[in-house]
Amino acid sequence: MEERFSELINGILEGNQRVIAKTISMVENQENGSIEILKRIYPNTGRARVIGITGSPGTGKSTLVDQMIFRWRKEGKKIGVIAVDPTSPFSGGAILGDRIRMMRHAYDEDVFIRSMASRGYLGGVSRFTGDAIKILDASGKDIIIVETVGVGQDEIEIVKLSDLVVLLLNPTSGDDIQAFKAGIMEIADIYVINKADLPETERMEIQLNALLSLSSNKNIPIIKTVAINGEGVDELVKTIDQMTYQSDRLKTIEKRRKEFAKWLLFEHLKEILSSRVTKGITEEEMEKIIERIYSKESDPYSMAEELAKRVKINED
Amino acid sequence: MEERFSELINGILEGNQRVIAKTISMVENQENGSIEILKRIYPNTGRARVIGITGSPGTGKSTLVDQMIFRWRKEGKKIGVIAVDPTSPFSGGAILGDRIRMMRHAYDEDVFIRSMASRGYLGGVSRFTGDAIKILDASGKDIIIVETVGVGQDEIEIVKLSDLVVLLLNPTSGDDIQAFKAGIMEIADIYVINKADLPETERMEIQLNALLSLSSNKNIPIIKTVAINGEGVDELVKTIDQMTYQSDRLKTIEKRRKEFAKWLLFEHLKEILSSRVTKGITEEEMEKIIERIYSKESDPYSMAEELAKRVKINED
Repeated sequence: MEERFSELINGILEGNQRVIAKTISMVENQENGSIEILKRIYPNTGRARVIGITGSPGTGKSTLVDQMIFRWRKEGKKIGVIAVDPTSPFSGGAILGDRIRMMRHAYDEDVFIRSMASRGYLGGVSRFTGDAIKILDASGKDIIIVETVGVGQDEIEIVKLSDLVVLLLNPTSGDDIQAFKAGIMEIADIYVINKADLPETERMEIQLNALLSLSSNKNIPIIKTVAINGEGVDELVKTIDQMTYQSDRLKTIEKRRKEFAKWLLFEHLKEILSSRVTKGITEEEMEKIIERIYSKESDPYSMAEELAKRVKINED
Repeated sequence: MEERFSELINGILEGNQRVIAKTISMVENQENGSIEILKRIYPNTGRARVIGITGSPGTGKSTLVDQMIFRWRKEGKKIGVIAVDPTSPFSGGAILGDRIRMMRHAYDEDVFIRSMASRGYLGGVSRFTGDAIKILDASGKDIIIVETVGVGQDEIEIVKLSDLVVLLLNPTSGDDIQAFKAGIMEIADIYVINKADLPETERMEIQLNALLSLSSNKNIPIIKTVAINGEGVDELVKTIDQMTYQSDRLKTIEKRRKEFAKWLLFEHLKEILSSRVTKGITEEEMEKIIERIYSKESDPYSMAEELAKRVKINED
């Protein structure tokens, strides 16, 4: 076991694709030892820049990400991509998306691409995504791209995970603009209007600038791209590079990384605590509790408090 | 306070739309008293049938739900709809969808429609969705429709919440079929091929039957609908009515409701426990902890274990 750990840890630190994939799966399946591995590699994290990319389905995220990988690879940067796709695998979106990306980068040892479901049992997957970022970071990736489909609350999650968030729009994203009023606007550090060869582009840009003028953060860059032929991607990549190294953003990045740390801390804390309580409960007892709730003799809220009573702050 | 509770509780039990909406918001915002209200109304739950409807974006869920509401309303059934839409509000999908639904049912006191984000801070929203179902149930709704965009892991969530799950497909959903192989197939109790006026319908039906023949649950009904003009919706509604009352499915429904109870129990337990731990930590201390993690002096995993040590099973 001990030996197997060191083997995996070394594999991760050497950037071995197979080992990285294996360890992420171990984390997702909450296999014994996965936490131990996460602990051991943690000191090797913090070097990668984590770039969040979000946008509605069909805005061209995968195509753009593919183009960005291409640019960064030319500079010899090592890339990790996590596609947190809530439409995956059900809509087939990510299945297809991954294929496209894979075809081009499949044989590149320095590009790791993984798609993860947006949430899992008891909403744990986003924690797994956080752990996966740490694994890729420790594996020596220079840039980790976290791609999520723009999905209400999930944008807030991506901010917690990312140093910088890119919001992808299309010239025809009228509804998205509308959604901005719901405050989503605030989370992005860069706006990209993709498919900028469409006639509505100018109108979209005017709308965006108008909204920015009302926003708390007025100097968000707006970049126009045509991902399909790579137009504008150089500028996007350059802007990301500047913004992630720019001294005046380092405070923001530090703040976000601390939020990320705090969030990971609490996700793991919750898990440890509830599993500890349940260890103290026999199956028969649990069945009785559920029966009492089902029969309306009690309710989930009171029973949760009752179970929580078994646990008390340790005064010693 | 006490009085305000009774007022809200009575409002819920009387099916007062405004009070229902207000209480769901209280739960989402974790306002004081919301748990107390959930406890008090819990004995009045369990009468509603909870129907989960899932499918990829664009399969026509909102239109179909609207048609189903229309049918059930003709029988005087009271309806609650929760649209758990991960594309909401960002893609505008749900914004638009809600508007369409609202236009038709807005003035119907016996139809309550609410759209909720698919997940929130620390993945708590699905718990809120569970609580919202209980509120609608207690408010005397006969049928509660939980509409989710088909999103990998989320289907598993919807099964936990629903008595019966309807999976919506289109004749052209080749990718969905592919996704079935990932096991999503198992979660549905009814398959609906919507937009069944398309030529690909027959091929789709053949594919589905072929897959069903390989599945553990071979007798899943396949219903063809054209939601836009209501075709097939009567049959769908009739099938749902049969399957949710059918004696041979009552065991399944009981099992699912117990899973729902257990899941709600643990969601609330986790929350109570982690909030209890954090109450014992001063802001300064928390900052120190985060600083230690950020500086790599420690890691989120070890610190979570350390914090968890402050809590121990109460032996007395």
